[in-house]
Amino acid sequence: MASSGALEKPRQLSLQDLDALALGAWILGTGGGGDPYHKLLNTKMLYREGMFAALIDPFDLADDALVAVVSTMGAPLVGKERIPDAYHALRPVRTMEDFLGRPFDAVMSMEIGGGNGVHPTMVAAFTGYPVVDADGMGRAYPELQMTSFAVGGLSCIPFALSDIRENDVLITTAVDNRWVERLARSLTTEVGSTATICMAPRTGAEIKEHGILHTTTQAIGLGHAVLEARRNHLDPVDAIISVGRGLRLFTGKVIDVDRHATKGFLRGRARIEGLGADAGSEFTVHFQNEFSVGYQDDKAAVMTPDLICVVDSVSGDGISTEAIRYGQRVTVLALPGPDVFKSENGLTFAGPRAFGFDLDFRSVFQDESK
Amino acid sequence: MASSGALEKPRQLSLQDLDALALGAWILGTGGGGDPYHKLLNTKMLYREGMFAALIDPFDLADDALVAVVSTMGAPLVGKERIPDAYHALRPVRTMEDFLGRPFDAVMSMEIGGGNGVHPTMVAAFTGYPVVDADGMGRAYPELQMTSFAVGGLSCIPFALSDIRENDVLITTAVDNRWVERLARSLTTEVGSTATICMAPRTGAEIKEHGILHTTTQAIGLGHAVLEARRNHLDPVDAIISVGRGLRLFTGKVIDVDRHATKGFLRGRARIEGLGADAGSEFTVHFQNEFSVGYQDDKAAVMTPDLICVVDSVSGDGISTEAIRYGQRVTVLALPGPDVFKSENGLTFAGPRAFGFDLDFRSVFQDESK
Repeated sequence: MASSGALEKPRQLSLQDLDALALGAWILGTGGGGDPYHKLLNTKMLYREGMFAALIDPFDLADDALVAVVSTMGAPLVGKERIPDAYHALRPVRTMEDFLGRPFDAVMSMEIGGGNGVHPTMVAAFTGYPVVDADGMGRAYPELQMTSFAVGGLSCIPFALSDIRENDVLITTAVDNRWVERLARSLTTEVGSTATICMAPRTGAEIKEHGILHTTTQAIGLGHAVLEARRNHLDPVDAIISVGRGLRLFTGKVIDVDRHATKGFLRGRARIEGLGADAGSEFTVHFQNEFSVGYQDDKAAVMTPDLICVVDSVSGDGISTEAIRYGQRVTVLALPGPDVFKSENGLTFAGPRAFGFDLDFRSVFQDESK
Repeated sequence: MASSGALEKPRQLSLQDLDALALGAWILGTGGGGDPYHKLLNTKMLYREGMFAALIDPFDLADDALVAVVSTMGAPLVGKERIPDAYHALRPVRTMEDFLGRPFDAVMSMEIGGGNGVHPTMVAAFTGYPVVDADGMGRAYPELQMTSFAVGGLSCIPFALSDIRENDVLITTAVDNRWVERLARSLTTEVGSTATICMAPRTGAEIKEHGILHTTTQAIGLGHAVLEARRNHLDPVDAIISVGRGLRLFTGKVIDVDRHATKGFLRGRARIEGLGADAGSEFTVHFQNEFSVGYQDDKAAVMTPDLICVVDSVSGDGISTEAIRYGQRVTVLALPGPDVFKSENGLTFAGPRAFGFDLDFRSVFQDESK
């Protein structure tokens, strides 16, 4: 997808960039990754105190540079009550540095989607480490092994996790990335379904080979497009489709939400009644933190790893699985996902069957890509 | 309780000592700590391969000696199917050594009771580290914070845990020892309710001040007394009472067991119908891995931190909460517990209320001790 090409060396993110990043990441979150709002406020607060976040192009990283891959883990719903803070985001990074016996050179998102797209800017402002313009998902996914690094065969240990108190845990050896997910998930559930994490340190070389590149820039671009459409009284949804090369799948009103926070996840589905051209039809989006599969009138219409984005039909704001509710006027969009997840291995990790749907992946962009 | 006094420097444990240790630890386990049998076989197997375990008096430890405090964690029932092995016992010790960047000088039991009393001999034979003649409980207790070290205000982090696969976890910071218990318990449950652990390294000075001293020797002494009684056709239960300065509380037949493995523990109760002098009366022992409170005809008769030991009325063998079953002829004994658990702080950690019983602690040895 859209890439800015070469960046000058670390470039400080402006407040406008941060606003656009939060907006774009919320759309790319496909319903998950948590609400970016409080993390955005945290980073802005650090900016007011003279601490800034800069963005660095992955190709400007030395091959042996060491990068902290950071995120929040848990049920996004919990973040609505226990507000994220920058110190909590920093803790697993420090735990990992103590374990490694050396500091990091940069920080990056595990997932560009939702609050986790903004997450590294808090760490960056605190530490002075630049944010790498890349992530491991190109969106948000609910489980740790659903990263391009895991698909590429890289381990996600050592792995550090911190709760909101003063509990810090390191997973130092693991059978595989699924076991890291299981262990970290049981810890996350025990501490209240919200934790911050720092995954295995990634080298510059690993990021250039296995990362999803320039996704921070992509999110900022999406956000700026929406903001510009609003300023010019144009349709923000059209702007998303245009900049994101997406497809409009369905437009309607949310008529029912079935949602429960369980075992560290937010699971359920939302039913949308068609409006306008879609009147008389119904669309159901299923979710496990993120939207995983969408059915139009009982026919599977869109599925992961295509990005399923539900946005406010008027404002273009991303709507998340913890915030979707009765009465909202929404548009369901598909955006193309990173190719790495369409490989056989990628589909095993993040295809519809990884979410419990016995479906063969079929992209809504299939014709285009063949 | 019985102490051997000064030991010569590390003294190799004989095969007879190992047998006696397993037997004595099973009695001191108060129903828990797991069956010592498979751990005993493991250590004997290492002996056959020329690897031996030596015992060292805590007072022979340098103040700055660093000791690995080891144990199995989980529901003892699981150990009946997934047999312990020495390599698994070693793993968290190596994880901790890697984290500390230095080797240990010795190893000791977290709890002398049950299989965990034998546990460090596996590590000792493997590594050559001597076993310190001490533990942190003087018995077995189900939860991590129920140690003399915790009562003395020492933290049990860093804390290493290994499952039976290749998953290793370190807790590097914790709010308190109860949080270590919660986090470790959720991990243990996730990996199948059995794990091996290495608690915070303890220095020689800490062990001399806060450890329960000479409990390995005590267990060996108890075991030898039972073995000698058997050889001489005397009553092994009398021998336990005599050597352990215990009290006979009840003799009868197990008529009902209610037992369930849940949330990493084995919980329930066993009902014993009186025989002989106790005919017409009934005794119920409640347990959470270990026996916690005993009622005679609905009156609380004995409670933690007194040791509640259920032994085979004929052989004197300890009977554990996972093995107690209908029809067994058993004797319920009380043995005096370490004083540290009778302090206000000790009772908070390991008194009857810590096990959910709203009872003020009253020792069966109370008159004697006043």
